[in-house]
Amino acid sequence: MPLSKDVQNQRSEQQFKITRVGVTGVKKPIMVKRPWGNVTLNATIDVYVDLPLDQKGSHMSRNVEVTGEVVDRTVREPVSGLEELSAQMCELLLERHDYASYSEVDISADYFRERNLPGGKPSLENYEICSRTEAYRTGVIRRYIGVTVVGLNACPCAMESVRSIYSERYPELKESLERLPVITHNQRNRSQVMIEVPEDKEVEVNDLIDIVESSLSSPTYEILKRQDEAKVVMDAHENPKFVEDVVRDILTRVLAKYNDFPDDAHVEVRSESEESIHKHNAFAERVTTFGELRA
Amino acid sequence: MPLSKDVQNQRSEQQFKITRVGVTGVKKPIMVKRPWGNVTLNATIDVYVDLPLDQKGSHMSRNVEVTGEVVDRTVREPVSGLEELSAQMCELLLERHDYASYSEVDISADYFRERNLPGGKPSLENYEICSRTEAYRTGVIRRYIGVTVVGLNACPCAMESVRSIYSERYPELKESLERLPVITHNQRNRSQVMIEVPEDKEVEVNDLIDIVESSLSSPTYEILKRQDEAKVVMDAHENPKFVEDVVRDILTRVLAKYNDFPDDAHVEVRSESEESIHKHNAFAERVTTFGELRA
Amino acid sequence: MPLSKDVQNQRSEQQFKITRVGVTGVKKPIMVKRPWGNVTLNATIDVYVDLPLDQKGSHMSRNVEVTGEVVDRTVREPVSGLEELSAQMCELLLERHDYASYSEVDISADYFRERNLPGGKPSLENYEICSRTEAYRTGVIRRYIGVTVVGLNACPCAMESVRSIYSERYPELKESLERLPVITHNQRNRSQVMIEVPEDKEVEVNDLIDIVESSLSSPTYEILKRQDEAKVVMDAHENPKFVEDVVRDILTRVLAKYNDFPDDAHVEVRSESEESIHKHNAFAERVTTFGELRA
Amino acid sequence: MPLSKDVQNQRSEQQFKITRVGVTGVKKPIMVKRPWGNVTLNATIDVYVDLPLDQKGSHMSRNVEVTGEVVDRTVREPVSGLEELSAQMCELLLERHDYASYSEVDISADYFRERNLPGGKPSLENYEICSRTEAYRTGVIRRYIGVTVVGLNACPCAMESVRSIYSERYPELKESLERLPVITHNQRNRSQVMIEVPEDKEVEVNDLIDIVESSLSSPTYEILKRQDEAKVVMDAHENPKFVEDVVRDILTRVLAKYNDFPDDAHVEVRSESEESIHKHNAFAERVTTFGELRA
Repeated sequence: MPLSKDVQNQRSEQQFKITRVGVTGVKKPIMVKRPWGNVTLNATIDVYVDLPLDQKGSHMSRNVEVTGEVVDRTVREPVSGLEELSAQMCELLLERHDYASYSEVDISADYFRERNLPGGKPSLENYEICSRTEAYRTGVIRRYIGVTVVGLNACPCAMESVRSIYSERYPELKESLERLPVITHNQRNRSQVMIEVPEDKEVEVNDLIDIVESSLSSPTYEILKRQDEAKVVMDAHENPKFVEDVVRDILTRVLAKYNDFPDDAHVEVRSESEESIHKHNAFAERVTTFGELRA
Repeated sequence: MPLSKDVQNQRSEQQFKITRVGVTGVKKPIMVKRPWGNVTLNATIDVYVDLPLDQKGSHMSRNVEVTGEVVDRTVREPVSGLEELSAQMCELLLERHDYASYSEVDISADYFRERNLPGGKPSLENYEICSRTEAYRTGVIRRYIGVTVVGLNACPCAMESVRSIYSERYPELKESLERLPVITHNQRNRSQVMIEVPEDKEVEVNDLIDIVESSLSSPTYEILKRQDEAKVVMDAHENPKFVEDVVRDILTRVLAKYNDFPDDAHVEVRSESEESIHKHNAFAERVTTFGELRA
Repeated sequence: MPLSKDVQNQRSEQQFKITRVGVTGVKKPIMVKRPWGNVTLNATIDVYVDLPLDQKGSHMSRNVEVTGEVVDRTVREPVSGLEELSAQMCELLLERHDYASYSEVDISADYFRERNLPGGKPSLENYEICSRTEAYRTGVIRRYIGVTVVGLNACPCAMESVRSIYSERYPELKESLERLPVITHNQRNRSQVMIEVPEDKEVEVNDLIDIVESSLSSPTYEILKRQDEAKVVMDAHENPKFVEDVVRDILTRVLAKYNDFPDDAHVEVRSESEESIHKHNAFAERVTTFGELRA
Repeated sequence: MPLSKDVQNQRSEQQFKITRVGVTGVKKPIMVKRPWGNVTLNATIDVYVDLPLDQKGSHMSRNVEVTGEVVDRTVREPVSGLEELSAQMCELLLERHDYASYSEVDISADYFRERNLPGGKPSLENYEICSRTEAYRTGVIRRYIGVTVVGLNACPCAMESVRSIYSERYPELKESLERLPVITHNQRNRSQVMIEVPEDKEVEVNDLIDIVESSLSSPTYEILKRQDEAKVVMDAHENPKFVEDVVRDILTRVLAKYNDFPDDAHVEVRSESEESIHKHNAFAERVTTFGELRA
């Protein structure tokens, strides 16, 4: 076989470094250990390194090779989580791309978890988990893990507006209007938390899911018989929330649960409601650190 | 310039005809006449012809040329609607592809329309319009026009479940529970109607939008101040609907409005609710003809 | 617990039947038997029944219950394929919805399969498989199974155009231009085949994948070292294809492989190229039956 | 009308501020002045403010009102660009949300522009433009404008690999292989540049489009007759590029064109190739400032 030129190793004429270069959208099944047995995550993976001033191209097939090696190993030896897998990949990336000073692995995957319905029966619910791992040749590594949860929020503002209109219009029903939740718009909500995990700590995604679900007006469920459905509706209306409330409640619970995380650990929380009364969405976000939250 | 072989005109070795061949996802601005002035639709266009047994390839650049010619003409002479434009395109396609016996043009576009809020103020609302036109060399032409509307539906079943639970639990509030709408889940709903337009008739998309919006629990609006928001919530809860109800109500209104349409004219109606209490959607559909609906 | 009204069982005032009503976008892991072990498919499932004239609503939670029961059983007893699973679901749906005369289950899922690189090394490739099963209370059942494959096609027309321009411009290089493939545009192509499976036959999805991949200019691979990459490029350029060619080649192979399928069995083939020289796509489709193809 | 409680103005129990809160996905037509006449952009708009510690909720309807007022005014008085419009919106947002210290408006829209084909004929091409404007109550305002361009890139590495394989295999064709571009994989590429525009400068989106298109292996066109198509293919193969090259070439041209921009002005460049030989993409990115690029 003739030796072709290594075009990637040529000198780049234009002396600009590249922040991130790699492959995006690689699909892979990953085997992960869970307390109740191994599960297969269908993951979508992005894998990057940086590129110095004087290198023309990155050897992208190495990114896919590293992904293949580390992920395929999970079939024999399931990993404890995406952070472990990503950290292994980041390390190998720096080994194989000797010109790189930085490597990054971003993973997202559907995740299934059994939840108990309001009435007690189990239901298998679908979530999205994601991780981001950034490694520097200096040895510094930053790991982030997060979840996206689809739930339900009911609007507290419209509830008060309707309550006061009905109270004026039907003074004889005042007692009922004060004691029972009043109609309001409610809708599908997509909320997300992502936190930086210090090297000596672990974060369990089920805990993050619990934090988000308990911060919504109500979780949602795949199977709801009539009484369960009523229970979810009543729960949500007894617990109306703005997207701002959802974000603050997640922050409160994150701070309580991970109270030993260092001040410089990063936190991102987002909540987006697919407003039933509008064609657009309502959105709230906090991007911060544990230190700022504690201040 | 040397003449290259016309590869498309070569004989295909395998004697299979092709049902549809062409280009998809062509983006074009189209100028359309409206009673209140000309509007620009940002359209996405698919353009097809069929291909006989003995022809290797279709000359796809002709599809884009026909699209360009007919659409660009609208800048000087706006068309009355997507049906007119598509019919012109279909005719030209059959002229330019002399081997074809069939041509088809599918268009979808965002569409903006001023609507009056419950409180009377105007609000510019966004819809999607679509058209499909099929022409045969025999002279037969079939034209379909449709709209997709985002609105709101409230669940009648959960409302009754909550009503009966509350009535049992709070017998003293019985009167209120019987007179006022009770809390239920409500959500963003996406409903669609598409009908076949006979050659001697016209269909105004605003009429189709009116038909769909009046068949939902409530339309949705971009801007809602507090009292308007309450009004939309109350309207929707006084008018709870299953997706099946939305489909049937659209069918009833279509039948009334287009009562002179022939029996063989086609109708498709779909309604999909992005259930606030589930992670999945609820969906209902009727695919039929005016004749079947009248039976 | 008080008994609430069964709103769904109420009579509908408007006497229109509903073609399909149900739930869409239910996500579930399905365990499937493969020769080399069990694999988990992350499936997205739509489940419908029809609704007669006189029934107000369909009991949609039954659709999700049926899905849960049948799919969860696969964890203990993996199914041989999506058709088997769907047929079980369709049967149960007709049992649970006694007013329905029709049930339908549509499933799509990512699917991973080990393929050999041109150079011989294995690579895990990603495909999409889908199935559609329609059951009638009369006992008739129709099962469709299909795959979507991402591959590569190179344009034969541009190759000939460039060849003739270069031949005119560089008559001294004529020999080379005639013996070697000439540059042309090539691009990511997404091709799909879906066929109806008679009750007494089985279709293996790997066979459908083989049929599509061998009908493209070349399959694509996740990991390609330099020599493999050159091989894929050379293969594709020795085998340039229009989307029409891809469709015809798939039809030819389907007809040969399933030569004992009855004349009324349905076949759908589509090929879409994400043209590298355009912002839009090229598309070809054949919707037909085995009988028509044999004619 | 009874006065309902202003739920948004209540004190929040949990003392966390919100980084951004607002509405996302608002669709609006915007009228923009161009040298050759006014054009309508179909925009998707996100509008945010921040929220202090002690405020429960943001009045989101004000975001949509501000959007409506400023955008609707463009029908009578077209704006010069998205930056002007966004700056007006940001200012009004800070006026109407007196508790906010920050406002942000993000806009994206399809944009059409006439380009000349290699052969000279005009073709209307589709691009995406976007802008982001951030305003602080301190008076600081940051404006970013960007474009996303779909074009074509051909791989230089596979070209060299094929060249050396063919040269070894066909030594008699050596001259041709050295003088003419050799086959390689090429594909649809999506490249993006976004730059910060100082208050006293203007950036014309057409210039950004020119910068990106000239940095690709070739622009792509809607209509290409046979000779034009060959020209695009030959151009692209005479100009093979990695995504890294595309990013660096854009950076070089940005630096030359905007040589009077201050050192702290921000630049982001991304290039993603939908690899024809893989199912995943290749991606490169540089996030930097003019100052860093000049260093």
